[in-house]
Amino acid sequence: MDSDVQFMREALREAQAAKAAGEIPIGAVVVWKGRIIGRGHNQTERLHDTTAHAEMIAVTAATEAMGGKYLNDCTLYVTVEPCPMCAGALAWAQMGRIVYGAPDQRRGFSLFSPSLLHPRTEVTGGVLQEECAALMLEFFRSKR
Amino acid sequence: MDSDVQFMREALREAQAAKAAGEIPIGAVVVWKGRIIGRGHNQTERLHDTTAHAEMIAVTAATEAMGGKYLNDCTLYVTVEPCPMCAGALAWAQMGRIVYGAPDQRRGFSLFSPSLLHPRTEVTGGVLQEECAALMLEFFRSKR
Repeated sequence: MDSDVQFMREALREAQAAKAAGEIPIGAVVVWKGRIIGRGHNQTERLHDTTAHAEMIAVTAATEAMGGKYLNDCTLYVTVEPCPMCAGALAWAQMGRIVYGAPDQRRGFSLFSPSLLHPRTEVTGGVLQEECAALMLEFFRSKR
Repeated sequence: MDSDVQFMREALREAQAAKAAGEIPIGAVVVWKGRIIGRGHNQTERLHDTTAHAEMIAVTAATEAMGGKYLNDCTLYVTVEPCPMCAGALAWAQMGRIVYGAPDQRRGFSLFSPSLLHPRTEVTGGVLQEECAALMLEFFRSKR
């Protein structure tokens, strides 16, 4: 659990990088055997690409690092609950475990169907939830 | 409807390119005002990337071509029903219309939740269904 907090802090660092770039502040890291093998933050604005979510970028980087396709032995840490697109990507990658910070009440995958994930993927929510949610809240308030 | 068939033939051409490369034979094109602005075929093997689906590649190309993020005035033609990941991506892109060939009985988005798509996206299935399905069937038979 301590290492969950530690790696969520790394995901938060990515979220801060997104915030600094004027992007929706969501960050993610992929960890394998205690080591970060993929990082990403939301870049939909910069890349003009609605699919450039933190998770997609981190998973693609991790897959590259593993030299293979599946991430069964890896854990994804992400500051906000993945959307259905990212959940679908995590299913294809067979992600071993997903740890997220804040739930997403509008586009969180769990609102649609938990079976969007691979059946063997473990999920833990609520790690550093308040910090992760505060970043989002602050961002959307500043846009009003 | 004639143009649906015409553009599905272009998607089938992409699927053939996937087949020739030893990939799962799925192809897609994105059309805007009667013109193809994005093409893609499945490249999960070549790119070692489980997210490199035909639709993801075609949508990213189309978004780039449009110089913006949303594809409300576009139609995606894809030989097989999109999976939840691709449906989620099409939702973010606000794709105007989706035309697919063969249904996917295992990972088609409609098996999970139709609301994975943007609420204003129109969907037409079954265009050149037999040709699209035959390519898939032949591929999976050859793998046994």
